[in-house]
Amino acid sequence: MSQSTVDQLTAALGAAQVAVDDASRNARRHDYWMVSHVRDLVGTPADKPLCVVRPRNVEDVQATLRIANATGTPVVPFGLGSGVVGGVIPGAKAILLDMGAMARTRFIDETNLLASFDAGRMGLSAEEEVATHGLTIGHWPQSVAISTVGGWVATRASGQFSSAYGNIEDIIYSIEAVLPTGELVTLGRGPRAAAGPDLRHILMGSEGSLGVITGVTFSLRRAAEARALSCFEAPTMQGGFDLQRTIIQAGWRPPVVRQYDERESRRLDARAKACLILMVHEGPAALVAVETQAVAALAEAAGIAAAPTDIVSNWLGHRNHVPGWDELTSRNIVADTVEISATWDKIGLVYADAVKSLAEVPGLLAGSAHSSHVYRSGLNLYFTFAVMTDGPAAMEAIYMDCWRRILEATDTNGGSLAHHHGVGRVRRDWLPRELGDGGVALLRTIKAAVDPNGIMNPGALLPDA
Amino acid sequence: MSQSTVDQLTAALGAAQVAVDDASRNARRHDYWMVSHVRDLVGTPADKPLCVVRPRNVEDVQATLRIANATGTPVVPFGLGSGVVGGVIPGAKAILLDMGAMARTRFIDETNLLASFDAGRMGLSAEEEVATHGLTIGHWPQSVAISTVGGWVATRASGQFSSAYGNIEDIIYSIEAVLPTGELVTLGRGPRAAAGPDLRHILMGSEGSLGVITGVTFSLRRAAEARALSCFEAPTMQGGFDLQRTIIQAGWRPPVVRQYDERESRRLDARAKACLILMVHEGPAALVAVETQAVAALAEAAGIAAAPTDIVSNWLGHRNHVPGWDELTSRNIVADTVEISATWDKIGLVYADAVKSLAEVPGLLAGSAHSSHVYRSGLNLYFTFAVMTDGPAAMEAIYMDCWRRILEATDTNGGSLAHHHGVGRVRRDWLPRELGDGGVALLRTIKAAVDPNGIMNPGALLPDA
Repeated sequence: MSQSTVDQLTAALGAAQVAVDDASRNARRHDYWMVSHVRDLVGTPADKPLCVVRPRNVEDVQATLRIANATGTPVVPFGLGSGVVGGVIPGAKAILLDMGAMARTRFIDETNLLASFDAGRMGLSAEEEVATHGLTIGHWPQSVAISTVGGWVATRASGQFSSAYGNIEDIIYSIEAVLPTGELVTLGRGPRAAAGPDLRHILMGSEGSLGVITGVTFSLRRAAEARALSCFEAPTMQGGFDLQRTIIQAGWRPPVVRQYDERESRRLDARAKACLILMVHEGPAALVAVETQAVAALAEAAGIAAAPTDIVSNWLGHRNHVPGWDELTSRNIVADTVEISATWDKIGLVYADAVKSLAEVPGLLAGSAHSSHVYRSGLNLYFTFAVMTDGPAAMEAIYMDCWRRILEATDTNGGSLAHHHGVGRVRRDWLPRELGDGGVALLRTIKAAVDPNGIMNPGALLPDA
Repeated sequence: MSQSTVDQLTAALGAAQVAVDDASRNARRHDYWMVSHVRDLVGTPADKPLCVVRPRNVEDVQATLRIANATGTPVVPFGLGSGVVGGVIPGAKAILLDMGAMARTRFIDETNLLASFDAGRMGLSAEEEVATHGLTIGHWPQSVAISTVGGWVATRASGQFSSAYGNIEDIIYSIEAVLPTGELVTLGRGPRAAAGPDLRHILMGSEGSLGVITGVTFSLRRAAEARALSCFEAPTMQGGFDLQRTIIQAGWRPPVVRQYDERESRRLDARAKACLILMVHEGPAALVAVETQAVAALAEAAGIAAAPTDIVSNWLGHRNHVPGWDELTSRNIVADTVEISATWDKIGLVYADAVKSLAEVPGLLAGSAHSSHVYRSGLNLYFTFAVMTDGPAAMEAIYMDCWRRILEATDTNGGSLAHHHGVGRVRRDWLPRELGDGGVALLRTIKAAVDPNGIMNPGALLPDA
């Protein structure tokens, strides 16, 4: 059966597009989830996929899904493998669909500020190309150089400039995708529509479970005329949260607003004594000028001191460093980040409860957080934990315990359990708390209808029934 | 069977909630679609619904849907009946679910800028209540005083201040709904989530076809500190479109930006000689000041003259007048508005093609347009047509012909065929052009899965299979 599937794929796409060698399959056994890395270390590695298919175009994706659907073979889409929640663990029976060969620019439209790419295009490469036209996608996840534009859509990603430019759902113009039955859809036509439910949102956040995203068209911005930096140091996290709330609810929208707790502030800059707040202002020069002044006045009124803006420029220069897990596991450290969101009245409680709970973990080296995305209704928090262990064998249980503590603190305070990394496997059993049983049932109903044979990325996103 | 359904409803909800009298049923045979009004005039009126159910709470809605689902009885949700695309024509076999008795304020939260209402709450009443707290929903459809907050969600509505405050999808925090099987879901938790597809978008624009929206929570704004008005007069529509594009793509976001063609400009103000552009600026005073100056400078650079701002204040004062169809049909006039959107490079062509095509209609009194919602990628147009006829018997065919001309002009130029009124019945056969056959098939798949017995608002939104 499996060999027959590979044969059918090879016949349909050509041998060059269907890799069965160990190296190709080994390299795509999982994404960048730390647990998968730990399992490799302890000798319980994820299985190699059945094969790695590298589609050249939409027709190759359609042919692959038709064969998979007819044979009941799982299909797991793969961008650049930078996901950190275990969305990609294909297993031995699955086709790993590596989108890396679909990376073309389809068009760049300077009049309508649109740019369209194959889904496998690396994010920074897309951004750099539109930048040569004086434009910007404005989507800057930390993974911008190791993720694809299709991956951004599949995971409902957020970028560092989101507070003015929005998250991926605010930047997407249209999405092209192949459904599990092989049908091609292009969703999104015109600047805005009221033509039934906005089906682009079925695909955004679908994590490979409802189809394969093959093309992405962005609604761009012109490169900002001016940029300015602000930095402040709040005596307490709550004081900083209150200032952020005042600024945003007054109607100011700096693209970057980040607030670090004491531990992370010291890591960011040795001069820090309390909670640093970093801001980047962008836009027309006159707007940037009044926003910078207004923010400074609001901080002063709140008794929050200014801090050197070279802290912000340093952050801008180094913001996309992603640590390798080997650096940590080789020192017997297990670590991760966990991003959540909550309303203003609860975000301080989420922070305090989570940090307090993490402090109970034996061997804890760090349990800290910063905020990085601000909304009228509240804020995200991006927790970091690091724990010294006795070695890899102990890591997975400690890792899951730290996650549980942060998500419990969030859930108890009514927050959202997933801000921008997605669900994958690490959060799937928490999904009923996020969506309610009714919401999970609705998602299952849609999944079963769109993917009747259950071929798309089984095991990710949805909890076992 | 039908009597049995009414009996079951009466037993479950109480007789006071289940009206079978002629007056109640007659008043809810249809919404404000002109064609339904014309059919009344020519003696082919829509049938009265089987009964009118007025739920008091979520449990009443659940009980109604469970009975309807078990008996295969159609259910048509009804807010205040101001829809203009024929979304509500229940027919003789359907339960008309009048949400008017579910109109409570659930909470207003000044810290997190949230306000929650029963879905049947009239929009202006909700806005006026939050205004007493110094807050605003910021959603101002022309129908604000004759539509419900649930109706705004069901139709994917837009308000007049959308260019800064967004359309309904940008203002919604969470949605509570009862699915056709009676299951209650609350979708939306926390300021932002990446926890699978954003299922709120299944309900926004669903037009009663996927469930009954029972509660709506808005993400509010604080009332703006300052407001200023700008007015300009562009020699041509294209010149005005170019100015709007320059302003928005430079990063300015006046909440209101409207541009009227010559005919509509003269109707707006007798002094007008060309195309008026009206703007309202809102926000922090310093922001309003620099935006107003910047917009004036951009207009001057484009050779577009300023016009008196009392034109804008007059518009603000009279903007929500909705004409009665009787005023027109009694003079043998058939008329309507048609709203579409298109990218910047095509919006001038859509305008020219539609106006030219309408001019071929015998008896045309007016074929004009204004824009009212601006995006980075393009603009909407809101066409108005009015035709002198020989009398009501001729009206429906002429009406459909005018619609066809405007939608053909839009489709030919790649625009979106429905900006903010929705699909209902007037656009349902155009849906494949908007979504593609694959998009319509995907929507049908979701509909069939969520509403397996097809009880929710049959005949609206989706074309016949």
